[in-house]
Amino acid sequence: MPQFAPLKNDTFLRALLRQPTEYTPVWLMRQAGRYLPEYRATRAKGGSFMGLATNPDLATEVTLQPIERYPLDAAILFSDILTIPDAMGLGLHFVENEGPKFERPLKTEADVLALRAPEAGSLDYVFKAVTQIRTELNGRVPLIGFSGSPWTLACYMVEGQGSREFHTIKKMLYGRPDLMHRILSINAQSVADYLNAQIDAGAQAVMVFDSWGGALADGAFQEFSLQYMQKVVSLLKREKDGVKIPAIVFTKGGGHWAEEIAAIGADAIGLDWTANLSKIRALVGDKVALQGNLDPAILFASPEQIRAEVVKVLNAYGKHDTGHVFNLGHGISQFTPPESVATMVDAVHAHSRTLRSA
Amino acid sequence: MPQFAPLKNDTFLRALLRQPTEYTPVWLMRQAGRYLPEYRATRAKGGSFMGLATNPDLATEVTLQPIERYPLDAAILFSDILTIPDAMGLGLHFVENEGPKFERPLKTEADVLALRAPEAGSLDYVFKAVTQIRTELNGRVPLIGFSGSPWTLACYMVEGQGSREFHTIKKMLYGRPDLMHRILSINAQSVADYLNAQIDAGAQAVMVFDSWGGALADGAFQEFSLQYMQKVVSLLKREKDGVKIPAIVFTKGGGHWAEEIAAIGADAIGLDWTANLSKIRALVGDKVALQGNLDPAILFASPEQIRAEVVKVLNAYGKHDTGHVFNLGHGISQFTPPESVATMVDAVHAHSRTLRSA
Repeated sequence: MPQFAPLKNDTFLRALLRQPTEYTPVWLMRQAGRYLPEYRATRAKGGSFMGLATNPDLATEVTLQPIERYPLDAAILFSDILTIPDAMGLGLHFVENEGPKFERPLKTEADVLALRAPEAGSLDYVFKAVTQIRTELNGRVPLIGFSGSPWTLACYMVEGQGSREFHTIKKMLYGRPDLMHRILSINAQSVADYLNAQIDAGAQAVMVFDSWGGALADGAFQEFSLQYMQKVVSLLKREKDGVKIPAIVFTKGGGHWAEEIAAIGADAIGLDWTANLSKIRALVGDKVALQGNLDPAILFASPEQIRAEVVKVLNAYGKHDTGHVFNLGHGISQFTPPESVATMVDAVHAHSRTLRSA
Repeated sequence: MPQFAPLKNDTFLRALLRQPTEYTPVWLMRQAGRYLPEYRATRAKGGSFMGLATNPDLATEVTLQPIERYPLDAAILFSDILTIPDAMGLGLHFVENEGPKFERPLKTEADVLALRAPEAGSLDYVFKAVTQIRTELNGRVPLIGFSGSPWTLACYMVEGQGSREFHTIKKMLYGRPDLMHRILSINAQSVADYLNAQIDAGAQAVMVFDSWGGALADGAFQEFSLQYMQKVVSLLKREKDGVKIPAIVFTKGGGHWAEEIAAIGADAIGLDWTANLSKIRALVGDKVALQGNLDPAILFASPEQIRAEVVKVLNAYGKHDTGHVFNLGHGISQFTPPESVATMVDAVHAHSRTLRSA
């Protein structure tokens, strides 16, 4: 196990653990990405998205790009949420303008019965990248590891690709709940093992992305997504070398389930822009920190408008001196002007300091 | 004004007005549609979707098809939510497998300033269809008229087509709220006029479809969608020849705003499948009826599973003898087996009678 440099800026970790901070920390989902010209330059030499994600040198390079450019309070591993099903042998590939697809989705009962956790070593490229990124961050900011949620992974594994309606997996869910639970059990254990290995490799916080939990009916969400995220959280290492490792769960479109999500044992819940931080804070009390929730579309507006909307989000959260990590409510768009991010980050830091001194 | 036959089954209207009913009435969003072989046969002779919608004889034929086949408690005008912007001159057309598009979307300030309400007479084909359908229904069940919400119409008018991210209209919303409000004011008046003309032509209830309100940030939803639906509701005729005309508003993905939506003066609010009817009933009290909210994907499951999920929805609403209209949480899929609808409708009627007698 390598020795890492001491952390200089732990604001993000303290906010997640509901310890006082001098200002509200901020990072962006998909902050290492196509909106940055330096990312596009690395892509040009590294080839495909997975070409970068599977090459620890290139993954390190792009993970650090937004940290070099903006005073962000956390870095996040450059990777894909679908590395686990790929390592299960489903054959991940990316089709231009269509998003990720699997060559061998789970179509039949036999496919489901044959499903196994990833083989040992098959995800080592991820853990190697984590260690290298943490080393090169050199203590500037904490490094976040992540995974897709058991349900969200299952959506891609059964549908074979993204979907708007999720008819294929919902047909399985309602028609063969036994098969659905089998997949989700394997996924939950695999996600926990994967996140724990990222923690061993150097991740200082972990996040579970439940991108498609919001497509489920009330009742089905609790049974087929939330239950398995709770399983993952219960299996996570929450401390490493005496330092706490906070866990964040984020169900896109799940704000109306915030109380239930806040109860599964994670340190923080992510929220999209449809949620009202003030109402959610009142509902969940001090149980968890909140992460979010600016509409990424605001980054297409003028600097004045961006600042005004940042102030609205911070004011909605209110005058607490901890428990809020500023973020977008979803990944940043590839068409975002990079200057907008600078405006947003500065506005978060400045206004949250003002709120604390008021 | 034609004389219409007296209504034989007013269960749907009574449930919307929170008057006691013997069972829970049911209809389906998009119940006249491609999942029905008889609809596909009419399409084959009538040409395009708008070919049917603009021909009162064919619109009547397809509107009545699901009423002939199933014991539904309401019929809904066969039309499109985008008739108003089409009549404003934006040039609606349908591209196979891509959904509706506008030839002349509102791209510039000049486009917005030139926008006018539809010319008199330009939507007469709709009102003619309403009268003809009401006549041919012959009092079997009530006829619902409908429109897109001001915001949802604006999404198509500015984006020029459907969207996942709504970057174009959100750029206008945050960057030029004055232009956005101008469009929405014109839309609100046009929607109210359109629905009132449908009421004059024979519609016995009206529904506003806010399909894209759920894409808005908290705060923006209230300012740019809800406010204008409230305007529409305030302008509606709520009584015709001494009979109440109930109004329903439905924001897809808006369950977490249910209290605010319930306060704008409509008789009922629609809910998608992510909402919990029991919790929503507790939040909104007796202010409004609730319409929804089965996941349309359940109609791909077995009859036993469909019945079980129908029972769950009815039980979630609880043992009240009024105030619930059963529906899907979104339009029925074109791939739905028609037998599933029969199973669903029968289960709603049977179990809701059981609940009332228990």
